[in-house]
Amino acid sequence: MLSARTSATRLDLAALAALDAADPLAPLRGAFHLPDDVVYLDGNSLGALPKRAEQIASRVLRQEWGDGLVRSWNDAGWHRLPWRLGAKIARLVGAGEDEVIVTDSTSANLYKVLQAALSLRPGRRSIVSERENFPTDLYIAEGAARVRGERHRLRLVDSPAHIEGAIDEDCAVLLLTHVNYRDGNMLDMAALTERAHRKGALVAWDLSHSAGAVPVELVACEADFAVGCCYKYLNGGPVAPAFVFAARRLQERSEQPLSGWWGHATPFDFSPTFRAADGIARFLCGTPPVLSMAVAEAGIDLVLEATIPRLRAKSIQLTELFIELLAQECAGLGLEPVGPRDPQRRGSQVSVRHPGGYAIMRALIDRGVIGDYREPGILRFGFAPLYSRYIDAWNAVAVLKDVLQTRAWEQPHYRERHAVT
Amino acid sequence: MLSARTSATRLDLAALAALDAADPLAPLRGAFHLPDDVVYLDGNSLGALPKRAEQIASRVLRQEWGDGLVRSWNDAGWHRLPWRLGAKIARLVGAGEDEVIVTDSTSANLYKVLQAALSLRPGRRSIVSERENFPTDLYIAEGAARVRGERHRLRLVDSPAHIEGAIDEDCAVLLLTHVNYRDGNMLDMAALTERAHRKGALVAWDLSHSAGAVPVELVACEADFAVGCCYKYLNGGPVAPAFVFAARRLQERSEQPLSGWWGHATPFDFSPTFRAADGIARFLCGTPPVLSMAVAEAGIDLVLEATIPRLRAKSIQLTELFIELLAQECAGLGLEPVGPRDPQRRGSQVSVRHPGGYAIMRALIDRGVIGDYREPGILRFGFAPLYSRYIDAWNAVAVLKDVLQTRAWEQPHYRERHAVT
Repeated sequence: MLSARTSATRLDLAALAALDAADPLAPLRGAFHLPDDVVYLDGNSLGALPKRAEQIASRVLRQEWGDGLVRSWNDAGWHRLPWRLGAKIARLVGAGEDEVIVTDSTSANLYKVLQAALSLRPGRRSIVSERENFPTDLYIAEGAARVRGERHRLRLVDSPAHIEGAIDEDCAVLLLTHVNYRDGNMLDMAALTERAHRKGALVAWDLSHSAGAVPVELVACEADFAVGCCYKYLNGGPVAPAFVFAARRLQERSEQPLSGWWGHATPFDFSPTFRAADGIARFLCGTPPVLSMAVAEAGIDLVLEATIPRLRAKSIQLTELFIELLAQECAGLGLEPVGPRDPQRRGSQVSVRHPGGYAIMRALIDRGVIGDYREPGILRFGFAPLYSRYIDAWNAVAVLKDVLQTRAWEQPHYRERHAVT
Repeated sequence: MLSARTSATRLDLAALAALDAADPLAPLRGAFHLPDDVVYLDGNSLGALPKRAEQIASRVLRQEWGDGLVRSWNDAGWHRLPWRLGAKIARLVGAGEDEVIVTDSTSANLYKVLQAALSLRPGRRSIVSERENFPTDLYIAEGAARVRGERHRLRLVDSPAHIEGAIDEDCAVLLLTHVNYRDGNMLDMAALTERAHRKGALVAWDLSHSAGAVPVELVACEADFAVGCCYKYLNGGPVAPAFVFAARRLQERSEQPLSGWWGHATPFDFSPTFRAADGIARFLCGTPPVLSMAVAEAGIDLVLEATIPRLRAKSIQLTELFIELLAQECAGLGLEPVGPRDPQRRGSQVSVRHPGGYAIMRALIDRGVIGDYREPGILRFGFAPLYSRYIDAWNAVAVLKDVLQTRAWEQPHYRERHAVT
């Protein structure tokens, strides 16, 4: 259970408002359209709407699609979007600009890099991952192994502590999510990559909860492959296409079976035989989703403007204060902390557990405090330092305290499950 | 070479304008935003912008994303979009509403159905297709075979006449595009499906150039699988997600390796083990692309309003008149007809070949007549009966005649290749 806060200084709303007033990132909140009556702490699920995204959508629809029609592939640069956005994301994850491209979904991209890794390690038959990894990653790994025949398989370890021991001679690729979706635990990318390489395995990193939120240095960590989504901390919109990273040293040897025409060396020759494009382009598949990519650029640009070091500094301060506020205000109300206490090992979220977790989150959302719920019993509060305020932490804790103290969450309708939780 | 027209009645602009005046579909053109200075005959590559698509985008961005934020998954029905759009497309391709779902790209969906088909025919090792099929279909088939190991392969036949002979005991799945992208040739779906079934093979149909343009009766033809895009005759926008069809009788036995969480039976249980959803939902993969799906609905609705029989009747009249006009106006100017003369065997396009094809198309586009170019030497004119007019056929032929007679296309800059042709 959460223990009472012991620090000398009691936090109050005025102290948090003063932090907002001094926050160098505060003006960037104005670049987003956010409802006035909401405390939004679910940017780790779906980021907020950049105002410029509306302008871009309007331009792409009216001028580029409506007036330009098919000419816009060349005239409006539609065909360059996967590369242009990829180069921008590369700057956020410590990659070379020719190592990242935007295309398809995170799941589809993960399938590509797992198959590429399995092909690069033909004598090895296992994908190794964590049982607590985001489920779609595990499902995709199952599918990738199954299609190669019975001797390929996915092996799961029960906790991060067991990862290293599971990397054996049969492990072709280690599949890890850098920041865990449920408890915010952040893995040591450099150390785990080094250990996998020492055993001859490759590593594929899922950066969905990292990109735009925490420092990532793919090249410095000698990472092999990575994927990630654009609709969480990158604010790319519902549901922007995802990105894929392949280290330059592996690209020319990487074969992936979703070999659609946009990954062809010369797609407009219309040759009947596939020949993979040079470089990262071979991870493209079908025709790129122009509208959603164009819209996603607005959010990515705001992250670039804020810079990762400034975002990370604010994220740590926000999550630390939120944890302190929970201790100060909600001690004894049945919440149990989940995930790392050390901010250096935590992503940009705070999770707590309560047996009534689902109903509590429904009650919070009813009162304008939007976090989300994850099984089992976990309330998840994401801080997106581009637009989250220090006073949001205060207001969220105040509402949570009230919901717990008054037992408002016990109203039966809060237990009714929504289709999407 | 195109021979001169022999029919008694000479066609003129007034005759064509009269057809427009009497056209029951003419009012639907007003539902699109189209530039005044353009004759658009490339709806078979990218359909035109429905005005309602702009309203939808504005609503999804401002109200649903901006104000609703993550709540819109439930409150705005985002999570139902793949099914809702799938059910609408099902009505256009003769399928049951629980047999079609919208997700991912055509290429990714093709990969899924090919893998499902290979799994359903475990003793068979070949995918059979046509060398003249759209290249991405062949590239995906190559990838699908290669990932299963060396004994799997893609076999290509040189013409539609050789398809039947190639269906042998080793053929797991026949991969065919219903209407050929280059010459508009339409295959006999019922007959070829029946022949494949007789030999124990399954058939996967690509409907990218069919959906919204020609009658398709998947259930009546006993089709097994189909895929198609939403951005051509369905006017879904650049580049809307694609659809996938699996016959009800095969769904519960269909396994596909892009087994992302949205294809799980209970995705929000966050179980570490994949269990495929019942029915067509197992062909979903990652989180659905909400914005582009929502926008795509506008174009699909207009096709439903027009109805396929009315669209097909107008399409045949448009393409027949265009062919007649070419014969009347352009005989002796070096154009060679390509594809079927019989409208019952032709999709909603007309193709002609000329050694200067690429430059001629560039010159046409410069003069506001937008068709497109496909190797080798092929000028492709697509008629989208939702918004194409009879006078468009006249105006396009008039400009083409002028470009050929004056040899305007021989200007050197028309030979410079664009990135996207």
